[in-house]
Amino acid sequence: MILALDAMGGDHGPSEVCRGAISACEEHPDLELVLVGQSSDIEPLLAGVSRDVSGRISIVHAEERIGMDEHPTVAIRKKRRSSLRVAMEMVRSGEASGCVSAGNTGAIVAGGVLVVGRIAGIDRPALGVALPTLNKYTFLLDVGATVRSKPENLFQFAHMGNVYSKKILGVSEPQVALLANGSEEIKGDEVIAGAKTLIKASGLNFSGYVEGDDIPYSRADVVVCDGFSGNVVLKFAEGLMSAVYSILKEEMGHRIMPKFGMVFMIPMMKDLWARFNYEKHGGTPLLGVNGIVVKAHGRSKAPAITNALRVARNFVLQNGVELIREELG
Amino acid sequence: MILALDAMGGDHGPSEVCRGAISACEEHPDLELVLVGQSSDIEPLLAGVSRDVSGRISIVHAEERIGMDEHPTVAIRKKRRSSLRVAMEMVRSGEASGCVSAGNTGAIVAGGVLVVGRIAGIDRPALGVALPTLNKYTFLLDVGATVRSKPENLFQFAHMGNVYSKKILGVSEPQVALLANGSEEIKGDEVIAGAKTLIKASGLNFSGYVEGDDIPYSRADVVVCDGFSGNVVLKFAEGLMSAVYSILKEEMGHRIMPKFGMVFMIPMMKDLWARFNYEKHGGTPLLGVNGIVVKAHGRSKAPAITNALRVARNFVLQNGVELIREELG
Repeated sequence: MILALDAMGGDHGPSEVCRGAISACEEHPDLELVLVGQSSDIEPLLAGVSRDVSGRISIVHAEERIGMDEHPTVAIRKKRRSSLRVAMEMVRSGEASGCVSAGNTGAIVAGGVLVVGRIAGIDRPALGVALPTLNKYTFLLDVGATVRSKPENLFQFAHMGNVYSKKILGVSEPQVALLANGSEEIKGDEVIAGAKTLIKASGLNFSGYVEGDDIPYSRADVVVCDGFSGNVVLKFAEGLMSAVYSILKEEMGHRIMPKFGMVFMIPMMKDLWARFNYEKHGGTPLLGVNGIVVKAHGRSKAPAITNALRVARNFVLQNGVELIREELG
Repeated sequence: MILALDAMGGDHGPSEVCRGAISACEEHPDLELVLVGQSSDIEPLLAGVSRDVSGRISIVHAEERIGMDEHPTVAIRKKRRSSLRVAMEMVRSGEASGCVSAGNTGAIVAGGVLVVGRIAGIDRPALGVALPTLNKYTFLLDVGATVRSKPENLFQFAHMGNVYSKKILGVSEPQVALLANGSEEIKGDEVIAGAKTLIKASGLNFSGYVEGDDIPYSRADVVVCDGFSGNVVLKFAEGLMSAVYSILKEEMGHRIMPKFGMVFMIPMMKDLWARFNYEKHGGTPLLGVNGIVVKAHGRSKAPAITNALRVARNFVLQNGVELIREELG
């Protein structure tokens, strides 16, 4: 399987991106990667890689780069030789089965729509993320592709989330819910109420409205919201866990007594942090476009890139785009 | 100072509400409380209270009660003898300097507007909460009074938050920000962009857009958003911290080695939990109404009620409503 990787994307590209690419190839012997970007920057980063892996990594030169602060649509339209656009064109042409980028989120979404194209029946794409929760994962979408939604958009997100949860996350009968400011019938606004009516009438296993605290308690397998709310929740989660972790580390340093206990506690804290470090759970699929596009966090280091490639590979193996097409058909 | 307390509100009223009331009177010798509700339920709960405190607690009988699931506006209009409405009428008439309820949020907001009345110049009220963050507190508003807002509403929230942060939380020059899905200029939607223009042109110390992860890192003193987003964030925070705490407790039980360290770690965990247990930080002022109305969490136990009374007392002492009136004047 060939995946295209935007080598220039993200805060730590291309060095971390290339390291992540090498790990992914080591992990998956069926994986071939095309690193797209400034070849003179990429080549030295591949020096010393084992023959087995280097044989499966190639470079496609792209001299332009879309910055994290550029206007998404303008950048994707004008920078035709940008690493992101070239990677996406490889998906459209079929040269690659999917692509991964840690670049400008808006540009990834714009490229998904303008270069890769939408699936028939999907008006707007959604970014979905499998959030670690109390017992399992909750698939939250949209986390930032479509800022404000119409009822039809949320309805389509619900169906895409349902497919993803079932086929990729392996939940047998996913419970689908709408995020609202209360679980009572009268909560939400017209858009959410409209989406509720549409989803209720469909064949989904719909459990109505859930509130913010239902997400960490995994009270639904798929939680649907507009890109604004989802983005705020996801980033807040990242920030809160990281702030709490900082406080704990600092406290450990300050207290005399606990230093003794610390030796025993550190592995536990590390496990928890590995589980709830939302930032490291790289790999947010852009659902609703005619090809596999996976966004990694802008702050991705190598392990997050490897994870995003794992998500993309899995999505290709499950034939995810076809599944969404069927669900909406 | 006389405060009216809706004795029947919340999941644990009147027993926990009365316990919280007694503690608050013990804590503040200047405090007199009127417990509003079913007197036959309340009286036995005050038995055995010290004379000093019992002399400062009176009961006003109200035979009706607004349930947590009732339609807010309908309930507040029709149940004229409900504990919540009677408590609010005491604020309007000046018999009480403020009121506290752990009841139906929507009914508290509806009662604030319909019974207590709005401050001139305020179109919609906002519920604000001082969220504990990395170093201090971030005042987040609205967390659920006004589901969707217009730019003018957000602009008014910004001013009310500014006053609250300055005068009640003691921040000298509060940094005010708008919550958005990205910090770049092009983020947000028309409503948020409109609010930005309005706030920029005012004299506030405005720092533009902040993202979800900026909240726990206290990158602004006042974060303004619509009631939908704020509610989702607040409830998500409650749920996430409570889920993480459950996991830690369970892990501590499971691991043999850490049990030894546990003895030392428990106080640290408890401190952190006390700080980040958002649910216990009772006391969300309803800003923009012509009197002091403080909402306590529906799940409030006695300490949260005491805390909400502390918030209300402080707001009265600072002459909070007058301050908002001046700011908007």
